[in-house]
Amino acid sequence: MAGKTTYRFEVDPQQVDFTLRMTIPALGSEVLNVAGIDAQRKGFGIDVLNRNNFSWVLSRMALEIDDRPEQYTAYRITTWVNEYTRLMSTRNFTLHDARGREFGRAVTQWCVIDLTARKAIDLSALARDHADTLCDAPSPTEKPRKILGIEPQQVSEHRVVYSDIDFNRHVNTMRYINMMFDRLPIELLAEVRPVRLDVQFMQECRYGQLLSIGYEQRGGSSLFEISNADAIAVRAAFEWR
Amino acid sequence: MAGKTTYRFEVDPQQVDFTLRMTIPALGSEVLNVAGIDAQRKGFGIDVLNRNNFSWVLSRMALEIDDRPEQYTAYRITTWVNEYTRLMSTRNFTLHDARGREFGRAVTQWCVIDLTARKAIDLSALARDHADTLCDAPSPTEKPRKILGIEPQQVSEHRVVYSDIDFNRHVNTMRYINMMFDRLPIELLAEVRPVRLDVQFMQECRYGQLLSIGYEQRGGSSLFEISNADAIAVRAAFEWR
Repeated sequence: MAGKTTYRFEVDPQQVDFTLRMTIPALGSEVLNVAGIDAQRKGFGIDVLNRNNFSWVLSRMALEIDDRPEQYTAYRITTWVNEYTRLMSTRNFTLHDARGREFGRAVTQWCVIDLTARKAIDLSALARDHADTLCDAPSPTEKPRKILGIEPQQVSEHRVVYSDIDFNRHVNTMRYINMMFDRLPIELLAEVRPVRLDVQFMQECRYGQLLSIGYEQRGGSSLFEISNADAIAVRAAFEWR
Repeated sequence: MAGKTTYRFEVDPQQVDFTLRMTIPALGSEVLNVAGIDAQRKGFGIDVLNRNNFSWVLSRMALEIDDRPEQYTAYRITTWVNEYTRLMSTRNFTLHDARGREFGRAVTQWCVIDLTARKAIDLSALARDHADTLCDAPSPTEKPRKILGIEPQQVSEHRVVYSDIDFNRHVNTMRYINMMFDRLPIELLAEVRPVRLDVQFMQECRYGQLLSIGYEQRGGSSLFEISNADAIAVRAAFEWR
């Protein structure tokens, strides 16, 4: 059994918005960055998986941000993996500010896909080989929720370009979150309100594809559905508190 | 007189493209990040300037990248200010990879603007107060060139959204570079060719504005002109080597 691992950061000027606080997409990006770096340092990162033509794929994410750290301040992200099911691994995060106060938390669920077949593989062998990296601590909040029944009130389009894509020529996870934030009323983002994001990744979008971004504001929730020509790619619900 | 200062980094998975090397916009972003952090640590950062309702504004940039570092590798950025004219400060950079080889360099020219009048102020007082931070070393390459006579062959539009803007609700410098890279043929970016970027920032673009992005490919050079409804905002030339 392993403990939790902590990574230290400082809020860069390029990560803040006009509130002089770090944006939620920038925080989400660092959370996912920590996932990649922690897996790599513990011997089961994309670098190792790629040798067998496998890769980690984010399936679902819940991210709660109560407050956003200010420019130039220090913060830390603590991470631990506490579960492997046959097809899914659960990686958890807590975020603490310079004063040691917890200001956010996340639960992410990942599968490993065979890059040729584009199918999720059985994680039993990987879970066995890396059993010593599991941490016996509960997830810090409710697991990512399933999102259903979005009825878009606004639909806009976006062509996938170079700055959207990752090493695999697929849209970078956080770019989807950016696309959603870009459609929100700017007044909502100026308020620095606590929020919970639930995001479900269903299909990968590729360079050059035309995406359709549907947005529904339902009471205190902002709901999104991003599709390419073939299928729904991402669903998300932002619950403003 | 001061020496040069070095900052250390590692290439994050989120900063690479499908070549598994760090993108040029990501490298440019870290260079500008270093400018902000170094000025802040030496007592003349945006945080201090803002108290007098002033701010640094990037006027011109030359960035040469011979090679791009690979994912998870270490690299370092060294910076020094070697000149103040009445209206402009020159900040220089060299980039070295994990083996100590120089793989890039940059020369940037900055003015300080009065945030209310939106006009450049005289830098004499600032240059005098911070004379001890000047470094008597030449710029590592030719200063940013003036760019003239672009004749766009392709024009596209972009509405300024939340993920484009900085703390001032203006388009983030590196987002302009991203907009340009997004219009290049993807084959050119797959080649990992040495390049020199010259960028001239003439006007700030604001949240909600509709930008027009003109692109001309002239031999081995990619030329760009970004305008808002009022004026030309940014001109750039990428010289592929």
